[in-house]
Amino acid sequence: MSPDDGARKARFHYGGLERVIHEKARLGILTALVSERGGVAFNDLKLLCDLTDGNLSRHLKTLVEAGLVVAEREEDDGRPQSIYRLSREGRARFLEYLVELDRVVADAAPARSARRSRRPSARPGGAGA
Amino acid sequence: MSPDDGARKARFHYGGLERVIHEKARLGILTALVSERGGVAFNDLKLLCDLTDGNLSRHLKTLVEAGLVVAEREEDDGRPQSIYRLSREGRARFLEYLVELDRVVADAAPARSARRSRRPSARPGGAGA
Repeated sequence: MSPDDGARKARFHYGGLERVIHEKARLGILTALVSERGGVAFNDLKLLCDLTDGNLSRHLKTLVEAGLVVAEREEDDGRPQSIYRLSREGRARFLEYLVELDRVVADAAPARSARRSRRPSARPGGAGA
Repeated sequence: MSPDDGARKARFHYGGLERVIHEKARLGILTALVSERGGVAFNDLKLLCDLTDGNLSRHLKTLVEAGLVVAEREEDDGRPQSIYRLSREGRARFLEYLVELDRVVADAAPARSARRSRRPSARPGGAGA
């Protein structure tokens, strides 16, 4: 089997979906952070991602330990708060992850458009759930 | 807080990323199956997704138990083999999942295009990794 055969045969192996990024809540956190280069405060992140204090803390710890996110203490009206942002490496790794996610979406695309074009004739009258 | 505020604030909560589907290997299996309405044989699926017998069996069991995938025994040149395909419900749930995945990709899109337009000036000469 040539390397080319291998690539074709393993077409649905999405090795680029890095596990630490792919977890659902962390994917939300990273998507929130990628657009905010100035960083996002803990409390804002909690609302944006609809996470509890405990869950957000736990996931941020994982992301910081993985080198994807950095935390900084800042003053907000004299009160210290934690600001989180993507590290330079984190930004690069997340953008790589998104390229692999594009591949999943592209691989599924033919089935999605087939469904759209089949729907009207498959259910004459269009009634039902 | 109005429901609208809630929706905006929880903008990066991707509740539609159903956990049983989102797992990396299972996402590959489902993407392989969604395009093949006739089903895919176990051994082909193993190559397509680059999984071991044990891992593929385990993930298929999870998908069957979740009602997403159905298994059938067929004869291939007189030898029985298992064919896997999406259930009707599985297809619907996977297509829903993909809609939420689109949302992740769309939410991250501004940051990706910003990077592309910034890159030439950020690294004059364009050398380096």
